[in-house]
Amino acid sequence: MSDEPTRVDPPPERSVVQHAELALLLEVTGTPKPGNVDREHDLDDLRFEHFMAGAVGARPGLELASDGERVGRAFERAVAGMSRQSGGNTQFGALLALVPLVVAAADGDLTGERATELAAESTVADAADFYRAFEHVDVAVDDPPAELEPLDVRRGADAVPVLEERGLTLFDVMERSVEVDGIAREWTGEFDRSFAAADRLLELDGAVPDRTARVFLELLADEPDTFVATKEGRATAEAATERAREALEGDGDPWTLADEFVAEGINPGTTADLTAAALFVALERGLDV
Amino acid sequence: MSDEPTRVDPPPERSVVQHAELALLLEVTGTPKPGNVDREHDLDDLRFEHFMAGAVGARPGLELASDGERVGRAFERAVAGMSRQSGGNTQFGALLALVPLVVAAADGDLTGERATELAAESTVADAADFYRAFEHVDVAVDDPPAELEPLDVRRGADAVPVLEERGLTLFDVMERSVEVDGIAREWTGEFDRSFAAADRLLELDGAVPDRTARVFLELLADEPDTFVATKEGRATAEAATERAREALEGDGDPWTLADEFVAEGINPGTTADLTAAALFVALERGLDV
Repeated sequence: MSDEPTRVDPPPERSVVQHAELALLLEVTGTPKPGNVDREHDLDDLRFEHFMAGAVGARPGLELASDGERVGRAFERAVAGMSRQSGGNTQFGALLALVPLVVAAADGDLTGERATELAAESTVADAADFYRAFEHVDVAVDDPPAELEPLDVRRGADAVPVLEERGLTLFDVMERSVEVDGIAREWTGEFDRSFAAADRLLELDGAVPDRTARVFLELLADEPDTFVATKEGRATAEAATERAREALEGDGDPWTLADEFVAEGINPGTTADLTAAALFVALERGLDV
Repeated sequence: MSDEPTRVDPPPERSVVQHAELALLLEVTGTPKPGNVDREHDLDDLRFEHFMAGAVGARPGLELASDGERVGRAFERAVAGMSRQSGGNTQFGALLALVPLVVAAADGDLTGERATELAAESTVADAADFYRAFEHVDVAVDDPPAELEPLDVRRGADAVPVLEERGLTLFDVMERSVEVDGIAREWTGEFDRSFAAADRLLELDGAVPDRTARVFLELLADEPDTFVATKEGRATAEAATERAREALEGDGDPWTLADEFVAEGINPGTTADLTAAALFVALERGLDV
C-alpha cells in the first residue's frame, strides 16, 4: 500500500441548494399527509411524479437565490422551472417560503429574523416577478375585494404597471395577504411556524418521512390551512384542523383522515408548504436522512 | 397593458444534469419494481428517502460529467455525494450507467455508440477513481478468481497501485466484468439494453411511473439480473427472470411478485440501474412527465 494513489476525497457536504431540493422531495415523501399528494396518495391529475419533476425543475431558481439574485426573480425562475411538468401547481407556496430561507442560509445566517429582514428588503421589481410567476402555473386564489381587483394575482404580468404605479414591494404584497395566506405570514412574521416545525423535526425520533408526516399533522392541528380556506371556505378549514387535532390525539387516525380528505377534496397545501420550509431548516441544522 | 413590464421569460429547458437527476427519482418512483425499493416498497434498512437523498447528493458528480470531467472522477464524486445518507448503496450502478450517457448528451450526441466510444477513451486514472468509489459505500460483489484478488474492487483505493502497474483503464476493468455485471455489458456494448428500454418508455402509454414499472419487468423477464446472480447465485437469478416473465404474461402479477421477492431477499438492482439509464435517455428524447 502506498499513500499517494490511495487518497480518497471525502464526500462533499450538501449545499444549501441541495438541502432545498431535498426538502421538497422529502416533503412529498412523508406519508400520510392528509389531503396532499404524498408517497401513498395521488390526487386526480396531480401525482407524485409531478412533484419529482417540480423539485428538479425548480433547482435553477433556487441556485439564483443561493447566488444572491433578487428574491422575486429567483422565485419566478424557480416556479418557471417547476412548471415544466403536466400536473400543474406542485410547489408554488413551498418555493415562496423557501427562497428567503435559501438566501439567508447562503449568507450563513439562517434565522427567521434574518429571513424576514431579507424579505423586507424586497423591491417593486420583486413584486413584479412574483406576479409574473403566476403566468407559469394556475394557483388557487380567492377573488380579491373590489378595490384590489387591479392587483389580483391572477392578472399575472398584467398587474405589473399597477404595482409600479403604487410602488408596492413584494413585502408590501405579502403584508396585504397575511389574512389569507399562511406563507405571507411566514414572510412577515420571522418564519415562526417554519422554525418551530424544524425544531420538532429535529427532536422527534424515527425515519424522516414519519417525522415529516407527524409535523405536518401538528401544524394542521395547530392552525387552519389557508389554502383550504381559500378553496373550500373558512368553516371547512377550521373543521379540517379540528379533525387533524382528533387524529393527533388518537380519536381518529391519520390514514383514515387522508382517505377522507382526498375524497372530500380537502387539500391542506399551505401546511405542506410550511412542512417543506421546516425540512429545509432542519436539514441545514443537521437532520440526518 | 404595456409591453415592457409584462414580459415573462419562458420556463427554462431541463438540462442534461436535471434529466439525469430526474431519471434517478423516477426510477425509484416506478412501482411495482419487484424486489427493489420503489414508491410502495422499502427494504429493511434501505428506504425510499435514502434514494431521494442519494439522487440529490449525486448531483455534483453528474455536473462534473456534464462539464467534461473524466468519467471516473465524475462517477467517484457522484457516488461520494450519493453516499451521504444512512441507507447505504442506493444508486451506484445507476450512476455508473449514467455517467457516460451524461457526457455523450452534454456533447450533443446521445447515442449508444458514442457512449461506448467515450467509455473506451477512459484511462488508468479513471479506473483508479472507480476503485476509490468503493470506499464510499458497500457494494455487493462476488469473490474474484484467485489471480484477480489484487484487483478485488472491495480493496478500494488499495488496488490502485496494481491497476497502475498493469496499466488497466476503466474500460479494461469493465471488459473483465461483462460476465458478472450488466452495467459493464452496457459500457462495452453500446448501451443496447438502455436504449431499447428507452424506446419502450417512449412508446408505452400511461403515467411515467407505470411505464417505468412495465419496462423494469420487461428487462428482468428478458435477462437474468447480474446483481441477483452475484448475491444469490445464477440459478436464483434465472428463476427470478422466469417468474418475471410469468408475471408479464399474466400467469402471475407484478404486485405479488414484489411481495415475494422482498420476502425472499431477491433484489434485481442491476435491472433497476438499467431502468434509470433508460429513463435518462427517454427524458433526453422528449419523455413528458
